[in-house]
Parts: sequence; structure tokens; C-alpha cells
Amino acid sequence: MMTKLKERVWKANLGLVKHELVFLTWGNVSGFDRESGHMAIKPSGVSFEELQSRDIVLVDKQGCAFENRLKPSSDTSTHLVLYENLNGIGGIVHTHSPYATIFAQAKMPIPALGTTHADCFSGEVPVTRWLTEDEVREDYEENTGHVIVETLGGHDPFEMCAVLFAGHGPFCWGRTPEEALENAIALEAVARMAWGTLALKPGGASCPGYLLDKHYQRKHGPDAYYGQIKKGDDQ
Amino acid sequence: MMTKLKERVWKANLGLVKHELVFLTWGNVSGFDRESGHMAIKPSGVSFEELQSRDIVLVDKQGCAFENRLKPSSDTSTHLVLYENLNGIGGIVHTHSPYATIFAQAKMPIPALGTTHADCFSGEVPVTRWLTEDEVREDYEENTGHVIVETLGGHDPFEMCAVLFAGHGPFCWGRTPEEALENAIALEAVARMAWGTLALKPGGASCPGYLLDKHYQRKHGPDAYYGQIKKGDDQ
Amino acid sequence: MMTKLKERVWKANLGLVKHELVFLTWGNVSGFDRESGHMAIKPSGVSFEELQSRDIVLVDKQGCAFENRLKPSSDTSTHLVLYENLNGIGGIVHTHSPYATIFAQAKMPIPALGTTHADCFSGEVPVTRWLTEDEVREDYEENTGHVIVETLGGHDPFEMCAVLFAGHGPFCWGRTPEEALENAIALEAVARMAWGTLALKPGGASCPGYLLDKHYQRKHGPDAYYGQIKKGDDQ
Amino acid sequence: MMTKLKERVWKANLGLVKHELVFLTWGNVSGFDRESGHMAIKPSGVSFEELQSRDIVLVDKQGCAFENRLKPSSDTSTHLVLYENLNGIGGIVHTHSPYATIFAQAKMPIPALGTTHADCFSGEVPVTRWLTEDEVREDYEENTGHVIVETLGGHDPFEMCAVLFAGHGPFCWGRTPEEALENAIALEAVARMAWGTLALKPGGASCPGYLLDKHYQRKHGPDAYYGQIKKGDDQ
Repeated sequence: MMTKLKERVWKANLGLVKHELVFLTWGNVSGFDRESGHMAIKPSGVSFEELQSRDIVLVDKQGCAFENRLKPSSDTSTHLVLYENLNGIGGIVHTHSPYATIFAQAKMPIPALGTTHADCFSGEVPVTRWLTEDEVREDYEENTGHVIVETLGGHDPFEMCAVLFAGHGPFCWGRTPEEALENAIALEAVARMAWGTLALKPGGASCPGYLLDKHYQRKHGPDAYYGQIKKGDDQ
Repeated sequence: MMTKLKERVWKANLGLVKHELVFLTWGNVSGFDRESGHMAIKPSGVSFEELQSRDIVLVDKQGCAFENRLKPSSDTSTHLVLYENLNGIGGIVHTHSPYATIFAQAKMPIPALGTTHADCFSGEVPVTRWLTEDEVREDYEENTGHVIVETLGGHDPFEMCAVLFAGHGPFCWGRTPEEALENAIALEAVARMAWGTLALKPGGASCPGYLLDKHYQRKHGPDAYYGQIKKGDDQ
Repeated sequence: MMTKLKERVWKANLGLVKHELVFLTWGNVSGFDRESGHMAIKPSGVSFEELQSRDIVLVDKQGCAFENRLKPSSDTSTHLVLYENLNGIGGIVHTHSPYATIFAQAKMPIPALGTTHADCFSGEVPVTRWLTEDEVREDYEENTGHVIVETLGGHDPFEMCAVLFAGHGPFCWGRTPEEALENAIALEAVARMAWGTLALKPGGASCPGYLLDKHYQRKHGPDAYYGQIKKGDDQ
Repeated sequence: MMTKLKERVWKANLGLVKHELVFLTWGNVSGFDRESGHMAIKPSGVSFEELQSRDIVLVDKQGCAFENRLKPSSDTSTHLVLYENLNGIGGIVHTHSPYATIFAQAKMPIPALGTTHADCFSGEVPVTRWLTEDEVREDYEENTGHVIVETLGGHDPFEMCAVLFAGHGPFCWGRTPEEALENAIALEAVARMAWGTLALKPGGASCPGYLLDKHYQRKHGPDAYYGQIKKGDDQ
């Protein structure tokens, strides 16, 4: 069971490289097994080129590693806080992908400027406030998780599957590690096009809400008809 | 006959990936057989990596799939409206390629800023109006096709082989799926350079019309002399 | 002799693809044999993927093709005018490489903003005036060559080995097809960084002339000491 | 011993190509053996494609090459001045990587706009003053080294492992050639995101100093806990 999860988390970590979402060791994917409460996560500072499936670290709910001797990602507490607070998610991706990070560094949400955005995210992708000096000193990584949950503000985590951590970069999630990876790819593509649109036309072009909503609903709503297998799809 | 068309449509779909015009599953190519009135199109939401020639879906003029069990692209009605209204076209490509989508999101036509543009498109590449809320609710995909035809405004579809759907992205076409793909590649390259030109020199540099016209004519006019095999070419 | 030239021109044409200087069929390389007065050039509109060494077209000084049945590049007359007027050059590259084309479309010279530029080009890379309507109508391709020569204004073609043709794109040259290709790669890299510098700091930062001159001279001057084999180098 | 150093310097030079930090021959890596006072460095003007391990040139403290017949990089004196003045460094990388060069051409330091920057660099990456005309004439490459040391102003070279040489490009260093390469990769990624952030939000968003400091310290401070093997790490 956990071997299978490690394998999937490993593959999703390699997906970060394949989709050009990471430089050097700057990023990580985790997967969560709700039954045992165990999380599989990338080891800290290990290069993606050398990463093996067996290097993925298993930790318990307190973040204590077991089974292998590698240290888990330094962002481990952030991931655990998100799994605890975001109901039903099973995978988390953190990257420094360039355009999403640019928005995080500008402390700006990614505005919903078109249907590509709406295909993936219901509304603008929010950015956190700055952490206070106390929050950084007390427990930086845990408080990173808390401010992401605070920023989400009770929204369904599947309607808004990403938050930008101000000054740092994006955290994305999904039902599985694979879905979280897909959302991270979508986020970067959407951020890149938002950046380019704002450069071409400051403020954007106010795409009507009913058009954005139509796109979100046809892919994720109760009567979604995009793709081959969807709930409510009996064609 | 239809097996051959499916094969060609499949290859053109893979061309979207090769030429970096799509992320994830965001795009599709179709081909049309005017004799039978049947269209071959990418199945909805299937990843390009897993896509096989046999997965391409055949639909009739009403958009009903036959022969295999996959659902056709959610943009099927848009394609059918275009085949019905644009005389002589045999292939359609829809992508979210970054720069063309940036212009669509800014609701700006792509201006003809140089001869590369004029080699492919006769005049600026137009952008549609926003669809109304009623049009979105009634039949979104079909009305997408109608507003593209409306935007083309009676122009020869071979003189203007692309329209930007406002807020969404480009639709391109050609005599065949291969030609539609080529036009989609050209559109993205032209959009990218237009974006960069406008950033360097707001408003651009007013390339004379006779220079643009010369380029369009030497490639597509009655006395075209570019390339190896052209009508009116008896060298 | 000419077989060898065709082979070299063919390889340099493939270099355009390798170094991402062309999309589709938009670009060409030629080589010139001063003894016979014959030029080897890419055939018109042939895809780089399918291009074979034997497809390279040999033409005489009047631009008449001999030896194979393919039509030479539509830019053939431009190349011939340059070989006739620029003393000692033996290779020419024309591309629509994105950033050099962006400057051509903005009808702006590429300013010498740093030492990378000065390593390759002595002063700003000039842009032509617009061709007049008469020049376009009378003999477009030949007049393209003439306006490039006019823009160079008697400069040594080895001190300024590129000119931007306004609204169209760059033409580069060198002693050989290989050197012309290298200059085209350098031009695109330099244009890209000039574009980014102007976006970051409008007007640039006035790099001192003596610094630029030092770089040009250490690579190309009579006492050049860059590289392994240089005239005036007796180490 | 020196054969091993040549091998490592060769591999790090190839890393420049792999990580897209160089065009043509524009860049070089060196390694220094503090015991013998010998430096291994890329030969001048040799293409990376043809570069072999045995081509790496060994020079003494005066920059005189021995052991093989290739001329060392024209930047040899710059490297030697840095090894002499920056205590403990064992590898140097010089590139013309696009975004770091853009900042150098704009004569602007790279501001610390986010935690990715702070993960690698303690404070903004400084840019040198212009060299004077005398400095360029007297000994350009040696004075390049001196102005870099001057710009560093007594800072620990491991807290600020890069300086932009105004008008030219970045010099990076580390304990080893491999670490210098890693810092050059990080610098380019950080410069690219700083460029994009400033385009999106002129002036940036003033990321709090305590947040930047936290990131630098968790990776490089006495109690660093990032990665698998760090001093002060006894987990």
C-alpha cells in the first residue's frame, strides 16, 4: 500500500522536471493516505535526477520520518497542515514555477482573465498575506500551512486548488498526487498567460463572469460534460 | 477512407504537442470529409500522450458519434458550424497556444506588424465580440461557431484562416488538417512577435500596406511564386 | 567542389532549426563560390525536416537554377545582390528569428547595450528604410538586397555582419555559410537581451564606448587574442 | 589530482550548455587547486560541443599555461584575481545567461524580491561600477577581477556568491566548480523571476526582511536544516 503511494509520489516528483516546473531542488510533491494518516514526501534537498522511488520519505501525522534514513522535505509541516485542514485532498505540489512565483513575489492574485483559467480555477487564485515576524520565528513551515488555509477562507479546496504564498510561490493540491501535479501545470500556464495579457493590456479585458462560469461548470459542475468519465455523465 | 482521415487527424493532434501549442488536454484537431459529411475529431479530455489513431471519434453532421465509444471533443458543435459555413475547409485546429490566447484574453485583434504576418494572413487576425449570456446558456459551443463566422464577415476563409474567440483562444482552419495545423503554428509565431513588438514600440511601426500585400500575394495570390507547387506556377 | 558547397549549405540550413531560428519554412542559408560565380541555396518552401543535401539548388549569377529541378528560394535575388556588393562574403543567412524580427517590425536598430553585442557587432545593428511602393513593384527581392547594401553605407561587411530589413527580419553574412549561421545565432541572442534590457530600463544604461570597443577589438581587431587561431596571434 | 580537476571542470563546462546558460562559446568554468596554486579553465573560443576533458587548460598563478597547447580563456586573469582575493572559493563560472546579463546591461543589481532569491543569495546581487578607460586599457581582464572584489566590499563570498559585471554579465563562484555551476543556475532563475516581477509590479512588493532572512538561514545558517548533510545537523 505505502510502497504504491511512494511510487506514485516519486513519479509525480519527476513530473515536476518533465513539465519544467522546478529548477535544481526547488519543489516537492507529497501524497497522503487518509486511512493510516501517513504521508509520502520528497526528501529534502535531493536532486530530482538522482531521486529513486525508495528515497521517498514516509512520515506520520507529527512529521516524524520512519522506514528510511533520509530527512523529509523542509516543507513537511506545511503539507501536514494542509492535509489536516483541506477535506478530501490526497496530493500536494509545491514549486517555484516561474510565472506563478512572479505573481507570488508581486503579492498579486492571478486574475481570471480567460476561459483557460476558468477551466481549472473558480475565480482568481488568491495570494496570502505576509506572515508576521512572530509567525516566521515560532514555526515557519507550520504557519505557512495555516496562512494558506486562512487565505482559502472556507472555500471548497476543489473549487480553488491553489494558493500563492506571498513572496515565495504556489502550493497546489488535488484528490491524488497526479491531480495535484496537473493543477500545478495548469496554474503555471494560466499565470504565464495572465502575465502576458496584463503586459499587453493593463487591467485585462473583463471577460464576462457568465462565460468563465460556463467553462468551470462544463468541466467541474454537477452536469459536467467535458472528458470521458465524469459524475452525472450518462452519455 | 475514414480510417485514413482518422490517421491524419490523429497525426495533426500529435503535431499540437510537437509544436508546443497545447498544455495538458487543451486543444483539438478535426478533419472533414465533404462527401459523406462526416467529421473526425479528438475525443474529449484524452491526453495526447495516450491518444491512438483508433481513438479519433467519427461524428455525423448532427455531432452524433458512431463507430467507437469515446465522446468527441466538447467543442464538436463549434467545428461542425465552421465546416458548414466556411466553404471548402477540410481541417480545423483549436488551441490555447500562449500568445494567441493572450491576444484573445486581451480581446485584441493581432495587428499585421510585419511580413511574417502577411505571409500567412491577409490583414489583422480578428477577435470576436463577447458572447451574450443567452448565447452561452442556449448552446455555447454552437454559438461559438456562429460568432466566429459572424466575425469573419464574409471574408474568404483562406485569406483569413484564423479567428480569436474573445476570452478563450484561437480557431484556425485550412483545406486539410495538416494545413490547419500549419496555420496554427504560424498564428502562434506571429502573435508572439506582435506581442514583443508592441512591448518594444507601443502601436508598432506602421509597415506599409503595399509591402504586406506583396508578401501575401507572392505566397497566396494568383501569380504566387513561393514554394515548389502553386497554381499559376509554370516555371 | 559544388557538391561540397551544397553539403555545407545543407548543414547550415539544418543549423537554423537546431538553434531555433526558424519556424516552418521561414528562412534560408546560401553559400557562394567566388571562382565560378555560382550560389548554392535552399529550395523555396521545402520543409527543413525533409530537406536533403541534394535538394540544395545551384544558381548562376542571374539566379537561373541548374542541375536539379527544384526552384531556389524566393529570396534568391536578394542573396545575389549581397554577394555582388559585399566584398569577400561567402555565406548568407536569412531568418525570421523572433527577437531580431521584433526589432525589424518596430523599425528600430538593435542598440549596443553590452559587451555581448560588442563581441559580435561593431556598433548598433542597423535597420533599413521602408522600400518604396515602386521598389516593391519593380523587383522586390532585388531591391531588398540594394536597400541592405545602402543601409550598410560602405561599412566593412565583416564589422557589421547583419542588417535588419524593416518590417521583415534579419539578413546576416560571413566568410562562409558556417560563419553566417554563427552570426545569426549571435544576432538573435543579442536582440533578445537588448529587448529585455529596454523593458527593464527604457533607454538602457549607456555602456561606455571604450568598453564596447575593447570587446570588439579583443575578438576581431588586428591584435585580437580571443580564441585559438587568429591573425596576429603568434603565441 | 590535476587530471581529476580537469575532468570536473570539463563536466561543469558542459553543465553550462545543459542548463542553457550559454550561447556559442560565451562562457567558461574554472576550478582551483589551492595546494599547488594551479587553475584548470576552459580553453578560449573552443565550442562546447567539441570540448574534451583533455582540452581543459592548466595555468599557474601568473596565468601561464602548461601541459597542453591550447590557450586558456581570455578571462583567465579575472578568474585568478578572484581566487586570490575570495577566501576559500574553488570554482568560478562566467556566463552571458540572458536574464542575469539583462540586469548587467541595465547596470542594476538584482533585487531580493522573494524567498527563491533568499534561498541562494544574502541580499541583492550587486552590480559593479563601469571600469574607467584607463582600467580597460591597462589590463582589462585583471581589472575586471579587481572591480568585482571591490563591489563585494569585504562581504563573505559565500553569502554573496555572484556579482554582475556592468555591461557584461555575471560571475559566480563556490567551494567547487559544481557549486559555482549550481549558483549560476540559481542566479539565472532568480534574475528571470525578478525581471518578470518588476514588469508586473514596478518596484516589486517589498518582501519583509525577516522572511528573506529565514530562508537564507534555514539553508545556509549555523542551524540550517534544509537538505541531507549540513553542518550543525545531527538529526
